[in-house]
Amino acid sequence: MEAEIEFVTMGSVTSPEGFHAGATYAGIKKKAAGSMDLGILFSEVPCAAAALFTTNRIKAAPVALSKERLQGGRAVAVVVNSGCANALTGEQGLADAAEMARLTAKGTGISPEDVLVASTGVIGVPLPMERMRAAFDQIILSREGGHDLARAILTTDTMPKETAVEVGIGENKFTIGGAAKGSGMIYPDLATLLCFLTTDAAVEIDFLRLSLRKAVDVSFNMVSIDGDTSPNDMVLIMANGQAGNEVITEQSAQAGAFQQALEQVCLYLAKYVARDGEGASKLIEVTVSGAQSVAEARLAARAVVNSSLVKAAIHGNDPNWGRIIAAVGRSGAEVVESKVGLYIGEVCVVKEGKSAEFSESKVLEALSGSEVLIDVQLNLGTAAATAWGCDLSEEYVTINSQYMT
Amino acid sequence: MEAEIEFVTMGSVTSPEGFHAGATYAGIKKKAAGSMDLGILFSEVPCAAAALFTTNRIKAAPVALSKERLQGGRAVAVVVNSGCANALTGEQGLADAAEMARLTAKGTGISPEDVLVASTGVIGVPLPMERMRAAFDQIILSREGGHDLARAILTTDTMPKETAVEVGIGENKFTIGGAAKGSGMIYPDLATLLCFLTTDAAVEIDFLRLSLRKAVDVSFNMVSIDGDTSPNDMVLIMANGQAGNEVITEQSAQAGAFQQALEQVCLYLAKYVARDGEGASKLIEVTVSGAQSVAEARLAARAVVNSSLVKAAIHGNDPNWGRIIAAVGRSGAEVVESKVGLYIGEVCVVKEGKSAEFSESKVLEALSGSEVLIDVQLNLGTAAATAWGCDLSEEYVTINSQYMT
Repeated sequence: MEAEIEFVTMGSVTSPEGFHAGATYAGIKKKAAGSMDLGILFSEVPCAAAALFTTNRIKAAPVALSKERLQGGRAVAVVVNSGCANALTGEQGLADAAEMARLTAKGTGISPEDVLVASTGVIGVPLPMERMRAAFDQIILSREGGHDLARAILTTDTMPKETAVEVGIGENKFTIGGAAKGSGMIYPDLATLLCFLTTDAAVEIDFLRLSLRKAVDVSFNMVSIDGDTSPNDMVLIMANGQAGNEVITEQSAQAGAFQQALEQVCLYLAKYVARDGEGASKLIEVTVSGAQSVAEARLAARAVVNSSLVKAAIHGNDPNWGRIIAAVGRSGAEVVESKVGLYIGEVCVVKEGKSAEFSESKVLEALSGSEVLIDVQLNLGTAAATAWGCDLSEEYVTINSQYMT
Repeated sequence: MEAEIEFVTMGSVTSPEGFHAGATYAGIKKKAAGSMDLGILFSEVPCAAAALFTTNRIKAAPVALSKERLQGGRAVAVVVNSGCANALTGEQGLADAAEMARLTAKGTGISPEDVLVASTGVIGVPLPMERMRAAFDQIILSREGGHDLARAILTTDTMPKETAVEVGIGENKFTIGGAAKGSGMIYPDLATLLCFLTTDAAVEIDFLRLSLRKAVDVSFNMVSIDGDTSPNDMVLIMANGQAGNEVITEQSAQAGAFQQALEQVCLYLAKYVARDGEGASKLIEVTVSGAQSVAEARLAARAVVNSSLVKAAIHGNDPNWGRIIAAVGRSGAEVVESKVGLYIGEVCVVKEGKSAEFSESKVLEALSGSEVLIDVQLNLGTAAATAWGCDLSEEYVTINSQYMT
């Protein structure tokens, strides 16, 4: 069935029907103009809910709590704070996460078991619960509160990342919204990613889980490296059915449209996360084509986008293309030197494994923009993949050498 | 058999008997005071020779040539240049590498087949063979030439890295020398490591290969990540037997002493390489103990030493210990949060997975020195491993954003 997918102007997690949100400044992170660090996302009716969590052996207390509560595939609200990860905080951390859920439940009149918890920020420090308790009463939930929620989850991000799409399919219409906080990493070994997705579509829980996994695979997992995650990473989707559509399952006529729309939201947010990497001035988009398999194309694309050398060179508009090919060469993907081609922007810089004749000024131009496109052609097969990242700047180091102090 | 191992004052690759070296400036890299970029290491008699090469699918021309020539386990000389990697240079690159060997053979009166070739520097650019041909005549080999060779292999290294040890064992005496150029990487995905080891001990080729592999495993492989190598990486050992000892095999009484001495030389050079990382101001030594296996201890130690976040925090004397534990948590090693302990220098900062009571000024002191010791205790088993790295500074980015330009 043909679907129309359109981005919603000023879209947010409260664009879908039935979702309310609100946030406040509780004094968890350092105060700046307009700072918010504690927020709640709430649905008028219980939701089918699915999430992907960090694979780090060290899991933050809110991750442990949310993972357990999500086993039933249901949630009504999520409470989130920034400024403190509530990770490596032992029994006290678990108690604090549980209290965050209880305070949220009390304020919204639901069961604490229906509240999920997420945190992001400094590891190893306990939450300032005293200040937070007082702040809960200041949170006012509203249908316009999505923008505040998007601000309340930020740490070193320079701007909120949120969007929504409206899907029209036959007689039906539903909306998917999302908010994310950034991976500030050059190598995303602490991606510190949080993402909250909402939809008013009615979605069967098994399909919701499958659909989320697929969407994350082509978006957030192509910004960060699988397995290289912080103790706090969490991507959550809540579907409340308020659009009134028939429940979407894997076999539904609407399944494809839902998947496509969800991937658009995730991709938008993932690219935004990449663009807003700590100290970043450019979005880098790397496409590897002609690989022997999608798995190899993914390996190669991510190796390029995660190479500190490539990122530093792009930061300096340095046409050091050897570093790109070398990253592909060590990625684990099959590479035949004499077949490799490379484009930077529209300029072919490598042909059949050797430097092509190219205009240096044109390459400089391609490197100087706010989006740098790198296109690696392996010429061995038909598989392709795209990954996103940002350049590596002196500012990144400055930010990360003074995070706690 | 008890062996005495002593570092040689001003030791170099020509400290062992029968080795000669020399170098000159051929105009391959930018000229600075005392620059050298073309060198030869030569043995009076043929050597048993073994090497470890890059695992990158993209191999520089000199690597392809040397790998093939070393199959017989014999070499007499090696010629090396810095400033140009001769990688991704196609047929011309292979022809140029072969010509470097021929010119060396001609000057020293040996067969070109007995000459190995190594290069390091910018990828994708052909060697300036015209200038290099003229320069070969300027190279004067001498028994004191080791220091010049150590300088001729440098790229962004701030100083030469060389050493030698003398081994006394019963009536016998032999010497092992070495020179290395640095891995300038925060993540060593292009470790660009070259290392030349020499010994006047007589060593049987199979044992020489085994011994080199073992020594590299506890030294260079604990600075760089396995498989994350540049197209040019090469660690070579040449044994010429001029000490007059009985040939050392795996079963020899002298095998243990040889292994121990070789590891000392490799460790010295590897730590030097770490300390002299691009823009580095500190050596970071990470020991993980109490692991369930050595393999897991190695994984964990390297994850910490390779974390950009840990490196940036140490650069800024920021006691952000959560990043260290998080790196261990994502390393693949088994970790039980409630058992983890962490020391920075002598200060216990984490006990049983939680922040310990510690003096901030003492941690600051431990972070401020030129060597920062990190000791992670998993308390799950008895295996341990140590890895080395350097801090991540703004200068690293500056260096790597302007490498070619």
